[in-house]
Amino acid sequence: MKLSGGVEWALHCCVVLTAATDPVPAARLAQLHDVSPSYLAKQMQALSRAGLVKSIQGKTGGYVLTRAAADITVLDVVQAVDGASPAFVCTEIRQRGPFGTPPQDCTKQCPIARTMGAADAAWRASLQGVSIADLVGDVDRDSGPEALPSIGAWLNAASSPT
Amino acid sequence: MKLSGGVEWALHCCVVLTAATDPVPAARLAQLHDVSPSYLAKQMQALSRAGLVKSIQGKTGGYVLTRAAADITVLDVVQAVDGASPAFVCTEIRQRGPFGTPPQDCTKQCPIARTMGAADAAWRASLQGVSIADLVGDVDRDSGPEALPSIGAWLNAASSPT
Repeated sequence: MKLSGGVEWALHCCVVLTAATDPVPAARLAQLHDVSPSYLAKQMQALSRAGLVKSIQGKTGGYVLTRAAADITVLDVVQAVDGASPAFVCTEIRQRGPFGTPPQDCTKQCPIARTMGAADAAWRASLQGVSIADLVGDVDRDSGPEALPSIGAWLNAASSPT
Repeated sequence: MKLSGGVEWALHCCVVLTAATDPVPAARLAQLHDVSPSYLAKQMQALSRAGLVKSIQGKTGGYVLTRAAADITVLDVVQAVDGASPAFVCTEIRQRGPFGTPPQDCTKQCPIARTMGAADAAWRASLQGVSIADLVGDVDRDSGPEALPSIGAWLNAASSPT
């Protein structure tokens, strides 16, 4: 079981976007993270499709978060990039073979699917309990309160009028 | 993010093995579940490598669980088949680009890795809280107390002396 590597980039992008005062081009985010612009653009497009960021057009255009960082959960970002499908897919094994249960008798999920579903729910609840604002607070505590504002200023420096 | 499909088969096999009084050949388990014998054999080998089942050699040989069903958790089975690696892999993005943190200053995990790690732990804890014996109890409640014993008798019927 492996999450898309894009999840990590998308989360980092959301955190640094909180520190930018103006829209940030995907290419500038790629430069900050030292990653291929096309790869990062793909993650930003996924965030955009999920309504977490929007693209502002124009010379000083770029991406902005669509809502307050406290209102974007880590689960929102994970599901935007990796999809919302559960990791376990029940193929109704109980309906197969000589002891197969007739489909019409399978009115509730089998115990294995219920168990896997409960674990999936625990995973999602854990990610839903942390917002981008929480991550910003953690970064401030870990790296000092000047770290993110410095990155924010650098992100916008390229697009500022001279 | 997707778990190996083998997880579902392996869990079903562990549940039905609790009802068998004698070793069960992988081919018989495949017949019960109406699945390719080679595919099912692969899952049984994974369970064997993890020490959850053992293969008894000989004419009436086959697989048996190595310990009581109450002492085998769903997490044991999931990790046997799908591996124990966490779904999220931190690539230390914070060390990259113009604001990269020097590796020697990265003495603890970054907030994003901690958040993803906590969710992974919640998922594993949920699966660790359910044993194969719990699943057997659930099947008894869902399908009646005769369902699993009937399957157990059928599994062993092929190898019984005539």
